[in-house]
Amino acid sequence: MKKLKRSARLVEMTHYLLARPHHLIPLTTFAQRYGAAKSSISEDLGIIKEVFEEEGIGDLLTLAGAAGGVKYVPRVGREQALVFIRELCDKLSQPDRILPGGYLYMSDLLGQPGLMNEAGKLFATAFGDLEIDCIMTVETKGIPLAYATGAELNLPVVLVRRDHQVTEGSAVSINYVSGSHKSLHTMTLSRRALKEHSRVLIVDDFMKAGGTIQGMVDLLDEFNAKVAGVGVLVESGEVDSEQRLLRDYVSLATLRAVDAKGKEISVEPGNYFSKFG
Amino acid sequence: MKKLKRSARLVEMTHYLLARPHHLIPLTTFAQRYGAAKSSISEDLGIIKEVFEEEGIGDLLTLAGAAGGVKYVPRVGREQALVFIRELCDKLSQPDRILPGGYLYMSDLLGQPGLMNEAGKLFATAFGDLEIDCIMTVETKGIPLAYATGAELNLPVVLVRRDHQVTEGSAVSINYVSGSHKSLHTMTLSRRALKEHSRVLIVDDFMKAGGTIQGMVDLLDEFNAKVAGVGVLVESGEVDSEQRLLRDYVSLATLRAVDAKGKEISVEPGNYFSKFG
Repeated sequence: MKKLKRSARLVEMTHYLLARPHHLIPLTTFAQRYGAAKSSISEDLGIIKEVFEEEGIGDLLTLAGAAGGVKYVPRVGREQALVFIRELCDKLSQPDRILPGGYLYMSDLLGQPGLMNEAGKLFATAFGDLEIDCIMTVETKGIPLAYATGAELNLPVVLVRRDHQVTEGSAVSINYVSGSHKSLHTMTLSRRALKEHSRVLIVDDFMKAGGTIQGMVDLLDEFNAKVAGVGVLVESGEVDSEQRLLRDYVSLATLRAVDAKGKEISVEPGNYFSKFG
Repeated sequence: MKKLKRSARLVEMTHYLLARPHHLIPLTTFAQRYGAAKSSISEDLGIIKEVFEEEGIGDLLTLAGAAGGVKYVPRVGREQALVFIRELCDKLSQPDRILPGGYLYMSDLLGQPGLMNEAGKLFATAFGDLEIDCIMTVETKGIPLAYATGAELNLPVVLVRRDHQVTEGSAVSINYVSGSHKSLHTMTLSRRALKEHSRVLIVDDFMKAGGTIQGMVDLLDEFNAKVAGVGVLVESGEVDSEQRLLRDYVSLATLRAVDAKGKEISVEPGNYFSKFG
């Protein structure tokens, strides 16, 4: 136990809460930690709550009763989300991203931990009220986004592999059809990785027709688990809605068109705001 | 510009700093942000600095002069690092991790964003004073650790792939020998991913003889880049020191022995403390 002045206590409590999103922290934890009365702790939390809400950092929920406490719930405000998504669209539209075949180079963006963490906070805002047991993604490029989302929601990440690895133990494999090329692929998940009846949030970096994500949904079936939601950083708008295998998902950006000849990429905000305005 | 009381300002500044590790923030940024005198901001920073240092959160460095400002440098204190590494060793020694062939199941631990972020903070403590331009890892299991380290050091992550992907553009491929089985593999890195003469911190989840990491070192040569450091979560101690390809690295845990018959796993702290005591 340590006696701190209110000012120092506020700094420490702010750090403590920010480091533990979606953890329920009993008031007694703070009271004991600082040797302070619960009433002082409540006042401190009131100050922190006001700043967190005004600055678009998140909510501070107070749960009353014996099993009660305080919980920091990260939430990005609408305005900040809009700024982030506009910046993302701008970056995605840089013409030097165009690769042979009309593919888009995104690895530099996916390689920025700060940007991934911010995107993860948007997904945590979108899915924070759902009952979810874990995040799932398939290797490779969606991994940082899945971890960023998992960190903000205090949830583990389950990683689907393309091949069965010796370090995964016994595993379940399925075949799936990647929508745009109709080519057949395999994905595999360790038996130990996912409990039965889990509610799973699927996260990925890019979705075209949705074949890869549909593959993960099929894999969940094998574990008697179910999808709680789907979040993708970028969706391709170059797909007929009839071709799309999946209808219920959240995207941060939509790739409308890639004109390799004219060196123009058209990107606009995804459906995030229509779902979580 | 918004006028905040000192208490609210402390909460906001704490969040602002924690969200921007290794960023140099001019005092005028805070002064303008809060419409406060620089002297008040300096006092606030003094309070935050004291708490950050006492609680083992990190340092708050003040750089004087026109280009000066304040920089939050995450640093895990020795005691906290010890607690974390002991817990990691305990978790790694759970006997149900043993897989056929004496392999160790670690995916549940690697799937915990909080644990990865904590390990990343240890690497940020170990390598925070070096001049580094980016973090490098090879897919798949080292990715979360590389991003956690990158986030704490404010550095981008460069991801080496096993196969050449169409979404990576032109790439450089090399062959390397995985030490323990002497089998030949390929790794590939997009030309765009790494600037010439970069100083690179290599991060991975597991190292046995060090063949995979030596492969990344060889790949760096192709980009005229160089290794600034190597950090691994777990090293295998089941390797003769003669067999080890790499001598200069930091490990958090050492896997001494896996006794598949007796169902015992022996894990002890890595060389972290001998290097960064």
